[in-house]
Amino acid sequence: MSQSIGPQDSSAPGFSLAIDAMGGDNAPDIVLDGLELAAERHPQARFLLVGDEARIGGMLARRPRAAKACMLRHAATVISAEMKPTAALRQGRQSSMRIAIDAVAGGEASGVVSAGNTGALMALAKIVVKTLPEIDRPALAAIAPSARGDVVLLDLGANVQCDARNLVEFAVMGDSFARAVLGLTTPSFGLLNVGSEELKGDDRVRAAAETLRESHIGANFHGFIEGHDIAAGTVDVVVTDGFTGNVALKTAEGTLKLMRDLLRQVFTSSIPARAGYLLARPALDRLREWMDPRRYNGAILLGLNGVVVKSHGGTDALGFAHAVDVAMDMVTHRFNDRIREGLAQIGKPVAAPASP
Amino acid sequence: MSQSIGPQDSSAPGFSLAIDAMGGDNAPDIVLDGLELAAERHPQARFLLVGDEARIGGMLARRPRAAKACMLRHAATVISAEMKPTAALRQGRQSSMRIAIDAVAGGEASGVVSAGNTGALMALAKIVVKTLPEIDRPALAAIAPSARGDVVLLDLGANVQCDARNLVEFAVMGDSFARAVLGLTTPSFGLLNVGSEELKGDDRVRAAAETLRESHIGANFHGFIEGHDIAAGTVDVVVTDGFTGNVALKTAEGTLKLMRDLLRQVFTSSIPARAGYLLARPALDRLREWMDPRRYNGAILLGLNGVVVKSHGGTDALGFAHAVDVAMDMVTHRFNDRIREGLAQIGKPVAAPASP
Repeated sequence: MSQSIGPQDSSAPGFSLAIDAMGGDNAPDIVLDGLELAAERHPQARFLLVGDEARIGGMLARRPRAAKACMLRHAATVISAEMKPTAALRQGRQSSMRIAIDAVAGGEASGVVSAGNTGALMALAKIVVKTLPEIDRPALAAIAPSARGDVVLLDLGANVQCDARNLVEFAVMGDSFARAVLGLTTPSFGLLNVGSEELKGDDRVRAAAETLRESHIGANFHGFIEGHDIAAGTVDVVVTDGFTGNVALKTAEGTLKLMRDLLRQVFTSSIPARAGYLLARPALDRLREWMDPRRYNGAILLGLNGVVVKSHGGTDALGFAHAVDVAMDMVTHRFNDRIREGLAQIGKPVAAPASP
Repeated sequence: MSQSIGPQDSSAPGFSLAIDAMGGDNAPDIVLDGLELAAERHPQARFLLVGDEARIGGMLARRPRAAKACMLRHAATVISAEMKPTAALRQGRQSSMRIAIDAVAGGEASGVVSAGNTGALMALAKIVVKTLPEIDRPALAAIAPSARGDVVLLDLGANVQCDARNLVEFAVMGDSFARAVLGLTTPSFGLLNVGSEELKGDDRVRAAAETLRESHIGANFHGFIEGHDIAAGTVDVVVTDGFTGNVALKTAEGTLKLMRDLLRQVFTSSIPARAGYLLARPALDRLREWMDPRRYNGAILLGLNGVVVKSHGGTDALGFAHAVDVAMDMVTHRFNDRIREGLAQIGKPVAAPASP
């Protein structure tokens, strides 16, 4: 999926992505190393790299592919991990994150990737890049592994309180996202609930289900799903409110961490167990690789006038490059146009099938 | 924890527990086998066994400990797994589940254990046994393993919509439950939220947190916790609404199942991996035993005028015996008296510490 917006498209911004060079625990090093990897994967991409010019100029020169793909723009300050979103808004105008976001709002870049302060990125993006006119509220999405392939989850915390209309919008955005980034032609989706029967849950999920069943993507709607369906991969897109989605994702991450820790204890508990680990190691390594959190790095703020991807702050170059991949897929596949098309369909009656 | 309510206590019901002999996938066999185990663990317990007399009379005679501990009461019908709660209410008056519940409502037994239809048990128990006058809504609780010992979770789906007062009541019930069943003297507890900072979440969790901080158990209140804190064992009691709790528990279960399936694939993927499994097997078996779902069998409906425990429908005798253990712990430790004492404290000012 490395085709780029070519010069033949005169309406496309000059830069594929603006990159916050200074955000994250190990910035700017891992950002530049990540861009070196990303530039190889997306040879036609052009990046606007925003950060401390004196500090990153020389570093960039030592990464030839990134140097070729990037234009450098100076930013005098950095939004720290601890800064509150309100402070970031008031005091962060000269920060690398803000200048990168400004480039999206000003039409210079199609999207932005930052490993910096999540709350600040979400607040600045919402206020500066602005929400699509068709959308009531943006949602935070991520991709996770399941027994049956990658799964999109949203909302993961952008909205702690949601109504039925929000859930419907999340479903449309999740559908477009799965098409653009997972490359699926008809992604299935489900609404997270406390049971799979139609009468389960509260008015909100039941009303959203009714609207979705009658929508243009109704044929792909699996109906209500339960917590265990996430890891089972019952659907490609899991739709829920930001409170439940945030808790579910972190619960799954915590459970995986507990299992990893316990397995480490198992395999160091005795000499035979250590030997057993060595024998099973190639297969265990494949499992570890499959679940590698770096492969799933990148939380995506959907529903804005531009692509906004948050990389995990503690990731490495490979993880950062994956976050850039996700953003590039969204830019290349004109993700926002798809959302707008999808939302225009919601509420319209489904076309009757042609008579035989 | 096998001390029983002795005959010296004239106000105690004659039976420790009423047991639904006919509920569950493998009833009545596993129920009777489970009671044979439970009767050994709780030698002073007396059970009212409710079911088809002709069918279970002979089976009981072949289980000497259970036969000694049980009195048999006939029930002509069974509430099936598919029956809707409303139908169970109307048509189930002669069922084993209903007659067992009636024994609690009538003061003959302190509690009831059933492996039958969950929705029917919850509805019948709420309507027949009735909610404690101090409680607005009962909650469903369970015990789960974590990195730092067993953790109590509630609500798991009895209430899909909760207000701040409900969350406070759940915290008090969870505290009493952890004291009675986990044997903790000062269990810590936390409110599940999308972040740990005080300003996170919605009005509901913030208002509940404020009340809890100022309550008689405020010193044990850890504040807000996140999804990953469940498996980490950050607190002994995880308090949340029924929608979030249901999704979180099932998400964790689904994640564990995925890991188990993947590990099975790993250890059968090659001859060296099989050999590795055999070498590490004693340690892997200890891990499996530690996480054995039978050890965590039993969902408990808290806040009623009696102890109500739902065993998993597909469990075996060991699992059913564990559900009886939980119910016995609650009966023995006068769980409901503790809840009432706790709720009477909520809203009262905390006693000032004695001056030095």
